[in-house]
This record gives sequence, structure tokens and C-alpha cells, in this order.
Amino acid sequence: MRNTDRICENIGVNEDGILLFAGQNAADLANQYGTPLFLMDEDRIRDRMQTYAKGMKDAFGDYGHVLYASKAASFKRIYELAAEEGIGVDVVSCGEIATAYRAGFPMEKTCFHSNNKTDEDIRYAMECGVGVFVVDNCEELFAIEEIAREKGIVQPILLRITPGIDPHTYAAVNTGMVDSKFGSAIETGQAEQITKLTLTFSNIKLQGFHCHVGSQVFDSDVYLQSAEVMIAFIADMYEKLGFVTEKLDLGGGYGVRYTADDPQIDIAANIRQVGQTVKDLVARHNIPMPHIYMEPGRSIVADAGMTLYTMGSLKRIPGYKNYVSVDGGMTDNPRYILYGSRYTLLPATQMLAERTMVCDVVGRCCESGDVIQENVMMPDTLMRGDLIACLTTGAYNYSMASNYNRIPRPPVVMLKNGTSYVAVKRETLEDITRLDV
Amino acid sequence: MRNTDRICENIGVNEDGILLFAGQNAADLANQYGTPLFLMDEDRIRDRMQTYAKGMKDAFGDYGHVLYASKAASFKRIYELAAEEGIGVDVVSCGEIATAYRAGFPMEKTCFHSNNKTDEDIRYAMECGVGVFVVDNCEELFAIEEIAREKGIVQPILLRITPGIDPHTYAAVNTGMVDSKFGSAIETGQAEQITKLTLTFSNIKLQGFHCHVGSQVFDSDVYLQSAEVMIAFIADMYEKLGFVTEKLDLGGGYGVRYTADDPQIDIAANIRQVGQTVKDLVARHNIPMPHIYMEPGRSIVADAGMTLYTMGSLKRIPGYKNYVSVDGGMTDNPRYILYGSRYTLLPATQMLAERTMVCDVVGRCCESGDVIQENVMMPDTLMRGDLIACLTTGAYNYSMASNYNRIPRPPVVMLKNGTSYVAVKRETLEDITRLDV
Repeated sequence: MRNTDRICENIGVNEDGILLFAGQNAADLANQYGTPLFLMDEDRIRDRMQTYAKGMKDAFGDYGHVLYASKAASFKRIYELAAEEGIGVDVVSCGEIATAYRAGFPMEKTCFHSNNKTDEDIRYAMECGVGVFVVDNCEELFAIEEIAREKGIVQPILLRITPGIDPHTYAAVNTGMVDSKFGSAIETGQAEQITKLTLTFSNIKLQGFHCHVGSQVFDSDVYLQSAEVMIAFIADMYEKLGFVTEKLDLGGGYGVRYTADDPQIDIAANIRQVGQTVKDLVARHNIPMPHIYMEPGRSIVADAGMTLYTMGSLKRIPGYKNYVSVDGGMTDNPRYILYGSRYTLLPATQMLAERTMVCDVVGRCCESGDVIQENVMMPDTLMRGDLIACLTTGAYNYSMASNYNRIPRPPVVMLKNGTSYVAVKRETLEDITRLDV
Repeated sequence: MRNTDRICENIGVNEDGILLFAGQNAADLANQYGTPLFLMDEDRIRDRMQTYAKGMKDAFGDYGHVLYASKAASFKRIYELAAEEGIGVDVVSCGEIATAYRAGFPMEKTCFHSNNKTDEDIRYAMECGVGVFVVDNCEELFAIEEIAREKGIVQPILLRITPGIDPHTYAAVNTGMVDSKFGSAIETGQAEQITKLTLTFSNIKLQGFHCHVGSQVFDSDVYLQSAEVMIAFIADMYEKLGFVTEKLDLGGGYGVRYTADDPQIDIAANIRQVGQTVKDLVARHNIPMPHIYMEPGRSIVADAGMTLYTMGSLKRIPGYKNYVSVDGGMTDNPRYILYGSRYTLLPATQMLAERTMVCDVVGRCCESGDVIQENVMMPDTLMRGDLIACLTTGAYNYSMASNYNRIPRPPVVMLKNGTSYVAVKRETLEDITRLDV
């Protein structure tokens, strides 16, 4: 198979030209489960979780921790995997909390994010025993204090800080700059103000700080910079307020390979570098070593995922374009219409055929923007019924899926040791109408 | 109240500064049903349906027909309203077919669109008794012929034709140009080819043609142009193939007012103009008068809808921006992040306060792009717990909603004669996890 097809080592092809994913025949899986179909490679997920866990342990010993940012892919099975691999998780809503809780995840290892927690969210999170809240703003602080007092508890929190770093990524996923809906900026003095305010509360226990600079970041300097800014801030708070930071969460955001043009990041080497930098900075500022957290989401699950579609029509418009329509689209993968995200698409049932045709692969929604990818090379022998695979869809595909056009969402099927099992069931027409009165 | 607030006549304000929608108190509705909350004004929907129905009747007598394009807002109650108002509906998937069917809609008045109908879709649509298929491509034709033969029926269809008109609207919702994933182009000769092919089938009955030029169109000339192109094509097919077109569907797409800058379209006057043009063209080409269909979606439901949010925090970043966070966002309204769509936002519980603060109104998702609208004027007295209304959300809001971040979708509550009722129930945490294994 072509080098450009092998975005991740779990991609292969058999002698009949059928795509293999995690060693399993894509056509057989499509037959068994139908299409569109989300596949996930359990071993790949575990491998990524272990790589982070080991990396953080090697860098920081007992002071290194991993939280899987579950918004990338949130369903019960994924929390079971995180629990089995001994890592914590980030949750961002009652829905994610409920999912982790129902999966039996140890809730003391959850960390609750979001820029806008309602009173109902706060109450529910406390009732489920969420370990730590990452507090975004003053309104939330007051609400948490009041509800914690009502419940007679002291709620551990981190404060979300914006370090003022531009990670050179998509505008929609930049989060660490001063001008952000998230957190309090160091530059404006607001980070210090909210720290002081927090220390006046009696039902809130400030454990430290959180920052997150962005998503799909390939430039490892970004993490070194944010460590530098955050540790300087921690030292400043120590000096000015006598506050000892127990926990520093450096966020997530490592980029993944969607196409062969994307670099491959050596996660272990990156964490080593962050580890050395953090330890040097802590020593230089002469502050107590905090527990260090990292929050990978996309880089845990993205290349563990693949979507299989069935092709419906090939339309050739002479002088214009070729369109290949598939039986899914923006409802299961809105990332192209949202961000123009690049993906690698493969002719899963014609892997050995020459790819001589440039085409747009489009979805089935009644919307022109429903495109999965433009200018894809495909065999011109593609026929209705052929399978098309979209690689690297493990993150932000199932989790962002909608029922636009009342299209049911595909199932998530996990692959493990040559067998497969359903982690999320396919939506039915019954499901689609069940909330209609 | 300000003129710029009154996007539609169903918006008002009471003496306490509370927003009224369809004459009902927004704060009371938020109290009763919680937020985020989709409200829909039943009378406004009926009024729009009646305006189209009467317009088409006045213009074409028994030859004029309206189909509500239900992808704009699809749930059981909306099909009941269409049935009661005596209009037909467009459906684009098995999900929409199932919804119409379960609502007891007369299925012979449904028209089944989509650029990619699977064999399963075709079978299900026939079993539900869908009136007419709008066929997009050759692969579909062959599949329909085969399945209709299996079932021993003759399936009435229209062919989707691209007239080659640029409606000067957003790229994502342009559909009538030659370079489109939809239909067969007249310009390339493919429309004629597929017409000829269709006439060779014995289990398919070709009734005519369909076109659709785009969405959110304010320029009424677009419809006159597409009528001209389509009727010339019909005359050409009559002359060349002796084919008598029984039905011509001119599609939908009339624009609606999202802000005071958008013009107000006089639907009745527009239809009169289309009617005169079509009749003149039919006479000029000396062809039998076909039945004429129009397919409004957005313009039936958009300004019948409003979303209510509760405000969570106001963040002022000196030298940068102000952010107002609400308890919904891109999960219930992805149109800003998708298309940069403009909306009118109002401080529903502080309508009499001066609006002196420029802010971005942002959602609660863990994503920087989760913005409902930038540069909105709001009172600087806004407090956690205040309500924010987003107007004109009746179309493509509930229907495009997702569970990103595992956030449950809001309910749809209908307003009628000073009372309210639930048309779609609020999703619960139970619903969110029910497909997880």
C-alpha cells in the first residue's frame, strides 16, 4: 500500500485490495454492522493512554498525572478504558459526568471544565463526587462556594488561567490567548485578582491552576512557553500571597496526523522535554514542586478511529468536478464544514486499483457544504456499493455528530484482538422520534 | 422597544422590561420549562403556511402547490400543522419520513429529496407510501427501478436538474449552479441524458423536474431566472422527446430577517411575480401548463422561533473584549460557527435597560469557536441568571443541534393563544447515555 495511506500503523491492505484496520477486514465489518460505521481500535487507545501515563511518570514520578480529555470521544466504554489504564479524565458537562459515573469511573479522578457551569451543573457534579472543578470565572466561584456550603463540603478547585500564548492553530480552537472566553488573564492582573478572591472563600479549596493553549498543536515550544509563564505566575502568587500551588495542569492539544503531510509527534520525547523544563523552572523559582497534569484528548483517540461509508453515486460534471456521494457526511463528521479540516480518504474495497480520478467526497445531507473532503484521488472504477474509509476520525466525530436531516448517528464498534464489539449502538428511527410529542 | 429589536411582529416587551414572544412572558416560560429553550409561535407558522398556500392558489389555481421543506425544522408536531393547513412536505431521509409517517401525515403529499438515497432508504420510502421521489442521479434511478419492480409498483419521480444559476448566497447553501453535488446540469447535456434514460424504465413514472437554486435568497429575480431556464428545458424535452411535464418544482430558499439589516420579503407579491412569469413562459413556449410546486422551509418557521438562554458570566478583559456566556451555544445553534450567520440577541429580562456594552455572546462548549454572535450591544448591568433571547431560530437550529460535549438538546415548546405546550421533550442525562453499551 502507499506510504501516504499509512497515517497510522494500524492501517493495512489484504491481497484482495480490501482495507484492513487493526488487522480486521473493513468489508466484513461493514457487512456485519452496516454503514456509516465508526470503528475504534482498542489497543491503539490503550497504547496512547499508556504512552502518556508512562511519559508523565518518567518525567515527574508520583507528581505526574494524565487526564483524558473526554470531550474528544465520550461514551461509557472509553471511561472504562481510562479507568483500567489508571488515568484520570476531564469532563465538561453533566452529560460527560453522567457517562463517566455510569461507567463506574472513579469520580475522584475527574476534573470538571467548562466556561459556564450552571448551578444545576455544580450541584450534580458535587453529588457525583467530581474530584476537582476547574473554575473559569467569578460568578462560578460564588455559586460553587454557596452550593458547597449548602452541602457542607469543601470543594477542591483549580483556577483557569490564560497565559497569553498564541499556539498558531485554528482560530476556533485557540484558547490560551488573553482574548479568550476561557479563564482569567495574567497580563491584565485578573488572574491574580481571582486567586486572591478564591482564597477568601471557606467552602472552596484552591489547589492550583490550569491552562490550555489550544488544539492540534505541533509546535512543542508552546508547552514550554506555557510552563514558563505558569510557573512564573505560581512563584508570584507564592511570593505575594504565600499561596502554595499543589497542582499545575498544563492542558492538552498535541496534534495528530490527519494526512501524510502532518508530522508525527513523539509524545514521549515531548513530555520529557516538558518535564525537564518544568523541573528547571521550579528549581530556578525556588518553589515547592506541584503535581503536574496533562490533558490529551485528540491524541489519545483520533488515529484509533476510522469511519466507513458506502458510496452511492459518482457524478462527473464535464468541465467542472467529480462528486462521490457517501451515506454519511456532516452529520457524523462536521469538521470539514466547520474548520476545513483535512482527512485521508481511501477506497476501502478497491485499495489496489489505480487512483486516477480527482473528486470531492460529499455527504448525503441536503446542503451543498456537506463535504467530507475536496480533491481526493480515487479509482475511476468506484461503483455504488463500494466502501470509502475516512481515517483518523476517533476524535470529535462521534462526539460532534448531529441528527441534521433526522439522520441517525452511526454506532461505535471497538476492535480488539481480531474480534469486535459494539460500544455505542446505532441510532434507530425509533430513537429519532422518541422525544417528539 | 427599539425598532431594530422587532425583527418580526411577534416580538414585544412589557412594562417590567421582560421580552414578550407571541404575547407571552419570556421569563415565565423560562421558569416553567428551563433553559436553553426553543420557543415556537404556532400562529406564525400557520400564517406563513397559509400565505404560501394562498399565494400559490391565487397564482396557479389548482395547479399551484406548496411543500414545506421539513429539514428546516422536523418533529412530529410540525407535520401535523402542515397536514392541518393542507400543504405537502419535503422529506430528505428515512428519519424525516418516519417522523411524518408517525405524525399521521398523508404520505402521498410527501416528496423525497436527497443526493444519495441508499437502497434501504428507497425501500423504506416506498413502504411508507411517499408520493414522489426527487431523483438525483443515475445510480438512484437504477436502484429505484429495481426495487419498484420487486415490489410490483410504478414509482412517480421528478428529476433534479441544476439550472446553472448563482443565487449570490453563502457557498455552503448554493445548490443551483452547474458545479453542484445535486442533480444533473442542463448546460452539460446531462439533464437531457438522464431524462431520456428515465423514460426507458417501466417501474418509474417520470412526472417532471425539480430545481433549487439556494437558500436565504433575497433577490426575487433568481426565481424568475430559474423558471425561465426550467421552462425552456421542459419545452425542449417536449419537442425532442415528446415528454409532457406534469410537475415543475421550483424549490425554495426565500430569505428571512435575522437582523434589522435584512430586508422583509413580501412572499405574496413574489409568488404573484413568479406566477405571471411562469404563465407567460408556458404560453410563449406553447406547452401544457404543469403543476407548479414551491418548497419553503426557512421562511415558514425561522421567525416563528426564538431561543432563550440563561446568562452565566460576564467577563470583561480590559483592552480586549467583553464575553457574555450563556447555557447553550453551538450545540443548539451551530450556524454562527458554520456560516458566520447573523442573529439578533436581546436582554430578555432587561429590555428597558440602556445597552451600552459591546460584547460577544458565547456558548458553554469547550471550544473557542463556540460563539453565538460577536459585537452585540447589551446592558452592562447583565447578571448571572438574566435571560438572553436569540431571535429567528425556528429554522436550522433544533434540526442541526448536536450533543457535542454530551450536552442534552433543549425542548421545543409551542406557543398558542396565550398557552404553551411541549412539541419535543428536553433530552435527559438518561437519553444521553442510553445507546452506550
